[in-house]
Amino acid sequence: MTQALRLGIAGLGTVGVGVVRIVRRHADLLQARTGRPVEIVAVSARDPNKDRGVSLSDYAWETDPVALAKRDDIDVFVELMGGENGPAKASVEAALASGKDVVTANKALLAIHGQDLAEKAEATGRVIRFEAAVAGGIPVIKSLTEGLAGNEITRVMGVMNGTCNYILTRMQSQELGYNALFEECAQLGYLEADPNLDVGGIDAAHKLALLSSIAFGTKPNFDGIEIEGIQQISLDDIHQAHDMGYRIKLLGLAQRTARGLEQRMQPCLVPSNSPLGQLEGGTNMVVIEGDAVEQVVLRGPGAGEGPTASAVMGDVCDLARGLQIPTFGRPATSLQEATPARTGLPAPYYLRLALLDKPGALAKVAAILGDAGVSIDRMRQYAHSETTAPVLIVTHKTTRATLDHALEGLRATDVVSGDPVALRIEQV
Amino acid sequence: MTQALRLGIAGLGTVGVGVVRIVRRHADLLQARTGRPVEIVAVSARDPNKDRGVSLSDYAWETDPVALAKRDDIDVFVELMGGENGPAKASVEAALASGKDVVTANKALLAIHGQDLAEKAEATGRVIRFEAAVAGGIPVIKSLTEGLAGNEITRVMGVMNGTCNYILTRMQSQELGYNALFEECAQLGYLEADPNLDVGGIDAAHKLALLSSIAFGTKPNFDGIEIEGIQQISLDDIHQAHDMGYRIKLLGLAQRTARGLEQRMQPCLVPSNSPLGQLEGGTNMVVIEGDAVEQVVLRGPGAGEGPTASAVMGDVCDLARGLQIPTFGRPATSLQEATPARTGLPAPYYLRLALLDKPGALAKVAAILGDAGVSIDRMRQYAHSETTAPVLIVTHKTTRATLDHALEGLRATDVVSGDPVALRIEQV
Repeated sequence: MTQALRLGIAGLGTVGVGVVRIVRRHADLLQARTGRPVEIVAVSARDPNKDRGVSLSDYAWETDPVALAKRDDIDVFVELMGGENGPAKASVEAALASGKDVVTANKALLAIHGQDLAEKAEATGRVIRFEAAVAGGIPVIKSLTEGLAGNEITRVMGVMNGTCNYILTRMQSQELGYNALFEECAQLGYLEADPNLDVGGIDAAHKLALLSSIAFGTKPNFDGIEIEGIQQISLDDIHQAHDMGYRIKLLGLAQRTARGLEQRMQPCLVPSNSPLGQLEGGTNMVVIEGDAVEQVVLRGPGAGEGPTASAVMGDVCDLARGLQIPTFGRPATSLQEATPARTGLPAPYYLRLALLDKPGALAKVAAILGDAGVSIDRMRQYAHSETTAPVLIVTHKTTRATLDHALEGLRATDVVSGDPVALRIEQV
Repeated sequence: MTQALRLGIAGLGTVGVGVVRIVRRHADLLQARTGRPVEIVAVSARDPNKDRGVSLSDYAWETDPVALAKRDDIDVFVELMGGENGPAKASVEAALASGKDVVTANKALLAIHGQDLAEKAEATGRVIRFEAAVAGGIPVIKSLTEGLAGNEITRVMGVMNGTCNYILTRMQSQELGYNALFEECAQLGYLEADPNLDVGGIDAAHKLALLSSIAFGTKPNFDGIEIEGIQQISLDDIHQAHDMGYRIKLLGLAQRTARGLEQRMQPCLVPSNSPLGQLEGGTNMVVIEGDAVEQVVLRGPGAGEGPTASAVMGDVCDLARGLQIPTFGRPATSLQEATPARTGLPAPYYLRLALLDKPGALAKVAAILGDAGVSIDRMRQYAHSETTAPVLIVTHKTTRATLDHALEGLRATDVVSGDPVALRIEQV
């Protein structure tokens, strides 16, 4: 098989340029490894005149990515534009319809439209590969789909948004509040155009939906994910977690239970000495648990030109080598509908509430918790501002339903100001 | 492709039984994932009457693994007997010659005979897969060969012998000496029949030879590995490393330099807060660095029935899905001869020597180091026994050649008893 694998690349931002660089720099290496040349035939981006720091003159230029996707001189359409609709979706559909395989880094597109696109791909005998969509340079899709294919997967967890982990670990190390670090990230260009995708947990939840689908053989079910961002995390929370031997992480978790598929993306406390607790800065980590392998932990850069382009090229090399695996690891038409389930497993929770300066306020809080059936492991009250005092509580193990009942009571009482913060303490 | 993939399994020890269990337990799952049934047709082991806790009555029995390998009703020969020669080698050769793909967990066989076997496989158009041979359940061969195929690999490192890491971390946590822990491991069954394979670093070096070959496109070169075991590590070393912010690990490292391929398996000091430094107990970890991906860290169980069988089944599923990749990631005939090179990069070193109780002894040691060009960062002398006192030294950065010169001087002097211990302090 010495015919070249011909790529059309749509989107020449950071990742697209990274892919071009690798294909040019490693032409010999790629051929040695895959047994055939890997070539770029055509590219597409908005502005053909922008200097991207890499020569594009060897490649045909298409202004319209759909036109690129339909070209009959490409074998693989590499979609690096992003966005869950618009040109990304239209061009991926066009590529599949015209018999091209697709490599994409687009987590939003696949989390929302993945089932439909996977069925379209199978109808035309093509495949969609998306290693770069989840956890940047870490070969996690490959590990889960192929390396661990002999396992019934029992749980998948991960820290999959580098910006959030950067903020949370900098809060700890720099003694800075959330808002200051949000500003720092904005200035460093670490935030998506819509920052809520990052700090609101949505970007990470897109990734979790893809991992879940492969792990459990279910259709990607982004809407079934409980999502909570990190905007409510205060320096008090970080300190208190630290004092108890925990770290706060925006943790994604998916597991199949008797009641259905549990998927959550929310700030949690994890033990400081666990691999997840030790994860600093913008690095990503995915933990995969299976009935045979027990636990595998994968760690690496979650974003950036090189790492993301590395993941794209891993997929490209697989296609060059002739690997054809269904999008989510088994035929799309065999994937089951996911039944979302809230977590039923009891866990300790960390609570923070702003107590109003009224006589008997703390007793009232304790009574509400007790009446709801939530028992207190530890409690600490600080003197803080003029009108409210922060109260930090760690509960004994309780179910989420019981806790919700207690939170309802706390919201209804007249001694608590604003919404209490409740974080699960996860054993990982 | 609905024809079953038919396995012949040679070796029914822990791993073999684990594979049988997975194939029986997950028949539906394997078919859903690979698109075809995965079946065991025949097995081979020494004693057909031994109770292995799993029913084998559905399978044909062969006393001779070579006969099993030649059966024309199997597609894949799964070699789980171990040993670098003897029946393992003979049966793998027979399988390849008769047109079967091979899946093996046998690191010794491939580290020593891998080049020859890979060429034999290619001559008959077959493949050898060996995920289980390196780092147990961690999909590291797949990550390196496929997921990171777009990278020029710059360095591979790892802790790949769980027994050694168990001993080293227990020395620290239990305040026990090497000999006590060696005994504990013997009683727990953690040691190979020849314990030197474990504590002498040979088993881990076999694994390193395989990673090197894939990473750098060279023929497996086990003989080119500098190997040093952990038998000389004392509790003093563990404590001293800890006080300086380091941990001692049996670390494998391979990198290609201008002078050749550097491969070493030796106890090193690594920073306590690095992923490698944080690795406790029998867990394995492999660190892969590439020009695009930067650094990926993979962690998981390095041995045991479930994890090793998981790796075997990952390979089996790949074959069921039709994946055909050359043994070491590129055609065997294109692999280059490795030119072994000792490390040229300077590093700080940790030294321990037993100083004889003579006047001016310490000054003599300092002078020898100074004359050789090794400068001392820190030095500590203890009063310990009647005739000798342990001296612990941390040097400034120096090359291995300079250090060896100094060590020669220390061995020749009349104030040092026995051989000095020298451990590299590795920045990981």
